[in-house]
Amino acid sequence: MIDQIPALLAGDRRVLARMITYIENDGEEKEDLLRELHHHTGKGYVIGITGSPGAGKSSLTDRVITELRKEGHKVGVIAVDPTSPFSGGAILGDRIRMNEHYLDKGVFIRSMGTRGSLGGLSRATKEVIKVLDAFGCDFIIVETVGVGQSELEIMTAADTTVVVLTPGAGDSIQAIKAGIMEIADIFVVNKADLPGVDRVVTEIEVMLDLGGYKKGDQAWRPPVKKTVSTSGTGVDILVKEIKVHRQQMEKTGRLDLERQRRLRAEVSEIIEVRIKEMIRDQLGRSGQWDELLEGVISRTVDPYTAAHKILKEELWKRSEP
Amino acid sequence: MIDQIPALLAGDRRVLARMITYIENDGEEKEDLLRELHHHTGKGYVIGITGSPGAGKSSLTDRVITELRKEGHKVGVIAVDPTSPFSGGAILGDRIRMNEHYLDKGVFIRSMGTRGSLGGLSRATKEVIKVLDAFGCDFIIVETVGVGQSELEIMTAADTTVVVLTPGAGDSIQAIKAGIMEIADIFVVNKADLPGVDRVVTEIEVMLDLGGYKKGDQAWRPPVKKTVSTSGTGVDILVKEIKVHRQQMEKTGRLDLERQRRLRAEVSEIIEVRIKEMIRDQLGRSGQWDELLEGVISRTVDPYTAAHKILKEELWKRSEP
Repeated sequence: MIDQIPALLAGDRRVLARMITYIENDGEEKEDLLRELHHHTGKGYVIGITGSPGAGKSSLTDRVITELRKEGHKVGVIAVDPTSPFSGGAILGDRIRMNEHYLDKGVFIRSMGTRGSLGGLSRATKEVIKVLDAFGCDFIIVETVGVGQSELEIMTAADTTVVVLTPGAGDSIQAIKAGIMEIADIFVVNKADLPGVDRVVTEIEVMLDLGGYKKGDQAWRPPVKKTVSTSGTGVDILVKEIKVHRQQMEKTGRLDLERQRRLRAEVSEIIEVRIKEMIRDQLGRSGQWDELLEGVISRTVDPYTAAHKILKEELWKRSEP
Repeated sequence: MIDQIPALLAGDRRVLARMITYIENDGEEKEDLLRELHHHTGKGYVIGITGSPGAGKSSLTDRVITELRKEGHKVGVIAVDPTSPFSGGAILGDRIRMNEHYLDKGVFIRSMGTRGSLGGLSRATKEVIKVLDAFGCDFIIVETVGVGQSELEIMTAADTTVVVLTPGAGDSIQAIKAGIMEIADIFVVNKADLPGVDRVVTEIEVMLDLGGYKKGDQAWRPPVKKTVSTSGTGVDILVKEIKVHRQQMEKTGRLDLERQRRLRAEVSEIIEVRIKEMIRDQLGRSGQWDELLEGVISRTVDPYTAAHKILKEELWKRSEP
């Protein structure tokens, strides 16, 4: 697969599709592939689009693609559905979308679901972002369905995060409680042709007045924009806002800082996974820790004491004073 | 909070509620509390109830409670909704339920949502199970809404896992793909008064014929039971099946093995969290790794190479030959 990187860089869409599948399937050379790809990343701008289910994120994403395409940008889309067992473009909604952008070689859409794996969706998404970045996408849109842990975690990969709400249904209040408030760079009230839209806008503005900005970025007050994704109304303004946010991030140096933070986190994560494997391996094998673990099972030792003992006595010797 | 353990063990419900809140809020003495509680756990039997949204899990859980109460068992319920920002019994559905079991001192129901935290719901659930176990619950029911990563992860805490499907909507097929098949000890086709119920039952049975049993437990073929949770039909049979499964698990020694595996995993997890904190701490501080991380940012070094280098040179010296 690594030998196909030149074809990827040259814009071969079939290689792109194959490479993503390869990564999703945890192909044997995946790590080496990602090593190589890293050198060709860092140019694409990642837009996250998230919000409560039924907020019209898919059609909004579609409209955003159309806007970006008007300007000739190459666009990659990752539609993540943590509740879906499907992946690889098998979702019905995706097929519908594909119709609209099917003949457009400047758009690449990919769906990702969990396929039953216990975790790893967020990591897989970040890896696929890298492939799309190396492929030369100017913008990579990550759209996630549902509001939950996985989604918030996935959104850490975005340079600009758009949170989509709708009129009614107590959406806005719920969003704040779910920690969505803190991840939004831009709020969109979609379905703005429905009654109650101004109320939601006001609610968000009031909360922003109370200071609920994105963590550590007091310089940017998230704008609240109205859209109707079915007709496309307001989407041009949303795209403009995304660009304004990007410029602001570039100007203040925050974009670089955020991306650096993300790479640091990536390195940490790789280290953690490695150490995790080693620990599982050691504890899994019968032998040295059996007596201690027996104590945990018979309730004479608690898990914390056992863990500290293992850490102190064996794994972490050198960090002792 | 630790000084209130005797009251908990004596069956004080208010202490129970306070202790759960304390754990959810990551109270300062949480670890010490869990250390102490560990000595009083291991008696409760954990039933997991999961399945696709709208399958009627809540009302089914209610009916199961009623059955277990008929036999005088003390029952604890944790209703987990990974998509909900609420916790602590604030969910509307919960209030409705509380009405039915409100005056029953032998039932304790608690809701848990993410409250915007990035992860940790599964861990929190397992911690609350411990509290309910120490409190003296004979059965602890963990019910989760939605089908996704978090849910599958939460279900690893259950001794018996019940997967709830409904007629129609291609539920069964979807379930298999999502890896639900492998976690089921018992299948329930709820809303069995709707058309299409026998078809779903047949689909599941066919799949079981093809050998899709729970991982590593070829001795137990999951039964497929029909229920109507709104009227209660079939729930007595379901509860009987849960007990049959429990007996089988006890007889074959699988229950002990599974619980041991779980405790080992718990110890591993504690170690991992500690190491994670240490790594984050080290990489977060400016200093030794800055040059290497600079390379990752400027794309001259890839994250994997950086991670290996850090592991090899510093953190993991002693594992070298």
